[in-house]
Amino acid sequence: MTTTTDTINSAAVATKANVYFDGKCVSHNLTLADGTKKSVGVILPSTLTFNTGAPEIMEGTGGSCEYQLAGTSEWIASGPGQKFSIPGNSSFQIRVTGEPYSYICHFG
Amino acid sequence: MTTTTDTINSAAVATKANVYFDGKCVSHNLTLADGTKKSVGVILPSTLTFNTGAPEIMEGTGGSCEYQLAGTSEWIASGPGQKFSIPGNSSFQIRVTGEPYSYICHFG
Repeated sequence: MTTTTDTINSAAVATKANVYFDGKCVSHNLTLADGTKKSVGVILPSTLTFNTGAPEIMEGTGGSCEYQLAGTSEWIASGPGQKFSIPGNSSFQIRVTGEPYSYICHFG
Repeated sequence: MTTTTDTINSAAVATKANVYFDGKCVSHNLTLADGTKKSVGVILPSTLTFNTGAPEIMEGTGGSCEYQLAGTSEWIASGPGQKFSIPGNSSFQIRVTGEPYSYICHFG
């Protein structure tokens, strides 16, 4: 059984949105009390490729997606409460159909 | 001179995005330490009509828009650091061209 992270507490929220791929992905940056940086965002139905600098962990909070890590050929499904990790200085494809995929992006 | 509200501190952030009008408007709900509810969002290039329940104050944090309140015929420009008020149980049109319009929505 998976549980979703419905709320992130005590966050400083950057009020200007990040808009990627003509709005197919929108996010807001958060800084937690301990200085940890995260973002909350959503991906609309589309297939997109993202590059990473730092390693990232994507955690679904609504809707679902499929992802394919660089150098692999498998598309893996990920839904609410599920996480997947992307190495640093790499890339991944993400495919959303139907309901938008809401996520938390954890860095490092 | 106007200054923009770049950050909202000590917020509890709802991690599932609100997606309106096929993603032309995306927002995340916030609850502040004192219980005040706000949202941060972005409107992509489009002309949209929103209905209000509670009165709302829109505060621009990036990009710009034009808005027209119900019962008026004037389109008024609003940019970063500028606010406009919408009465409760009413509606307004908002028109964005070019850069997405990031905003904070204050309720009540």
